[in-house]
Amino acid sequence: MTASPLTFPQGFLAATTAAGIKPSGRTDLSSVVSDADCTWAYAGTRSSAAAACVTRGRELYAAGRPVRALVVNAGNANAATGPQGEADNAAMAAELAGHLGLEADAVLTASTGIIGHPLPMDRVREGLTRLPGALADEAGSFAAAIMTTDTRPKTAEARLSTGARIVGTAKGSGMIHPDMATMFAFAFTDARVDGEVLRSAFPAIVNRTFNAVTVDGDTSTNDMALVLANGRAGEVDPAEFLTALEGVMRDLARQIAADGEGATKLLTVRVSGARTEAEALAAARTCCVSPLLKSAVHGNDPNWGRVIMAVGRSGAAVDLPEMTVRVQGTPVFAGRPLAYDAAAVSTSMRAEEVVFEVGLGVGGASGEAWGCDLSAEYVSINAEYTT
Amino acid sequence: MTASPLTFPQGFLAATTAAGIKPSGRTDLSSVVSDADCTWAYAGTRSSAAAACVTRGRELYAAGRPVRALVVNAGNANAATGPQGEADNAAMAAELAGHLGLEADAVLTASTGIIGHPLPMDRVREGLTRLPGALADEAGSFAAAIMTTDTRPKTAEARLSTGARIVGTAKGSGMIHPDMATMFAFAFTDARVDGEVLRSAFPAIVNRTFNAVTVDGDTSTNDMALVLANGRAGEVDPAEFLTALEGVMRDLARQIAADGEGATKLLTVRVSGARTEAEALAAARTCCVSPLLKSAVHGNDPNWGRVIMAVGRSGAAVDLPEMTVRVQGTPVFAGRPLAYDAAAVSTSMRAEEVVFEVGLGVGGASGEAWGCDLSAEYVSINAEYTT
Repeated sequence: MTASPLTFPQGFLAATTAAGIKPSGRTDLSSVVSDADCTWAYAGTRSSAAAACVTRGRELYAAGRPVRALVVNAGNANAATGPQGEADNAAMAAELAGHLGLEADAVLTASTGIIGHPLPMDRVREGLTRLPGALADEAGSFAAAIMTTDTRPKTAEARLSTGARIVGTAKGSGMIHPDMATMFAFAFTDARVDGEVLRSAFPAIVNRTFNAVTVDGDTSTNDMALVLANGRAGEVDPAEFLTALEGVMRDLARQIAADGEGATKLLTVRVSGARTEAEALAAARTCCVSPLLKSAVHGNDPNWGRVIMAVGRSGAAVDLPEMTVRVQGTPVFAGRPLAYDAAAVSTSMRAEEVVFEVGLGVGGASGEAWGCDLSAEYVSINAEYTT
Repeated sequence: MTASPLTFPQGFLAATTAAGIKPSGRTDLSSVVSDADCTWAYAGTRSSAAAACVTRGRELYAAGRPVRALVVNAGNANAATGPQGEADNAAMAAELAGHLGLEADAVLTASTGIIGHPLPMDRVREGLTRLPGALADEAGSFAAAIMTTDTRPKTAEARLSTGARIVGTAKGSGMIHPDMATMFAFAFTDARVDGEVLRSAFPAIVNRTFNAVTVDGDTSTNDMALVLANGRAGEVDPAEFLTALEGVMRDLARQIAADGEGATKLLTVRVSGARTEAEALAAARTCCVSPLLKSAVHGNDPNWGRVIMAVGRSGAAVDLPEMTVRVQGTPVFAGRPLAYDAAAVSTSMRAEEVVFEVGLGVGGASGEAWGCDLSAEYVSINAEYTT
């Protein structure tokens, strides 16, 4: 949703190549490299079947040393590939590090695509040799090279008062129900940010942004969110930075929801009056993942009973007599069904974004989540993915 | 799956009528009446937006007195209808009790259909007057009268060594992801069963049967499972009875999954090697609810990576190097991807039932869950339900 070409913050460059991992021949191997050490924050999927790239990223994050580069392949998740998959993932980092004159542990890895197939390492190795010579200051190509079933690249940016910038990129369209971080979200900044500030603030930001997105309730084995800060633009106010970072990640999260597999519109659910933020987010997210509510949104059907159902199963505390529901601004429930013009509300749902506002009536916490409608297209995309 | 006409166990009769609650004019109001007091067991939805019928049923169950009859309406869930809904629900029981010469608290209620619309009480009252004169020994008509989007009535029966019988009926096709009990499952028996035996065994049986079914992950506001035992056929061995009851409920659970909205086949997931039965059931059920796995099953795509993904997000403990997956009997994963004939496995998936067997490699517990494939038909059924 930013004008192209989008440049990177100072000191970051990216390279992409078509290594032949995707059958389509599109770009599928890419890297972002910083010319200075980066502080970073990282969140990987909570899946117990996490892929090799997530396992390795988590270990490097625990070690806490600065990093310099990220290498990403699309078209193959290198997940459920056993010991060979771990070796291939480590080799991908080590070989690029060799070409760049870096230590292997300064290079993070990310893989996305089909689960359970070995990486075609001959092609990956050959592609990696081409990356160092292709580095350029263009973020859009990188955002395109990390896509799988996405229909468009996802980027967002913010500029701080000091002139420092944050550029974010993301991918993800199906298997989207992040549990710690969404498919891929990579943010790069030339602001100087203390590593501990970044690490401590990141989980809450991820919870309010990527963990509030859902396309189908299916949590990927490879989800990760990452921010790299190389300090080239100097010191910034930490609070200003974190607010800007959350804005970038929220923008990307909404782009992922709007580009959900088969989606024709964005579904936004705002919950207030919750006991805790966690319960507000749970209620909002359960609405966004409900196939029944998603189908109703697809058909412009103001079937608010499905909101009641979804909130009811979300685990959030609710006081039914005090509960309220609005559809596109129209009150439809307030402890009991309200009279409203169903045809007019249905017409108002023929929009790029459909918003439900739900009051739980038990407290003062709020939260927001994003999803998309469920269309027949989702089924056809996913009935024929491998064969 | 039983030959019709199916008679009730001794002492039970049912009546049905078309009260005009369903716009289609099909039968929509029905009752089962026992000529003797029944011990009973009950499970209602855990939804915090539970309907008036569930709230009332739970209170009566806590009070623990015997019951004599059940009255059911289809086409309107009487959920999220506020204080008026509670009064209407109580009136439905009280008026039928009056016609039958029973106390109101001896009559259980159940409503299913659209959420958030007041019950048309004039029509309900008139319909109730017709039920006592229409009582007959035929379970199939009752099973048909409780349907909404179901395409066929669901019944099952078992005969004990003493001659006592259990007859079960169920309904449910969408909004199926029971959390305590499925949409409706009613079992009737003339066996004499101690009330406490029934009450204490029922939750575990529900967990292994109705709570192991999912169509779309959406938990209804009105789910309930109920068994009524009137003792007319005398004493039975409790262990034999409970095994037979679980068989009847399992049969009904599978029928619900196979008749899921838009379903073309039954999806069965058997998990072994789990740390606990609860984790085995969670892993199996997460596979059955995954839109990605359901879409793959629809397209006969042996995309077992989606099983790994679903188990990974289920919360069940798993040892990836020891994990195994079979599709229709063919091993496809054993700590690493196995070579197999994808075309042959795809052909084997063109069946009424597709079975995945998953070994978690961490313990000795097992569990099984049932779902269905996801088709474009599910979306069209649910995009146009109310408007």
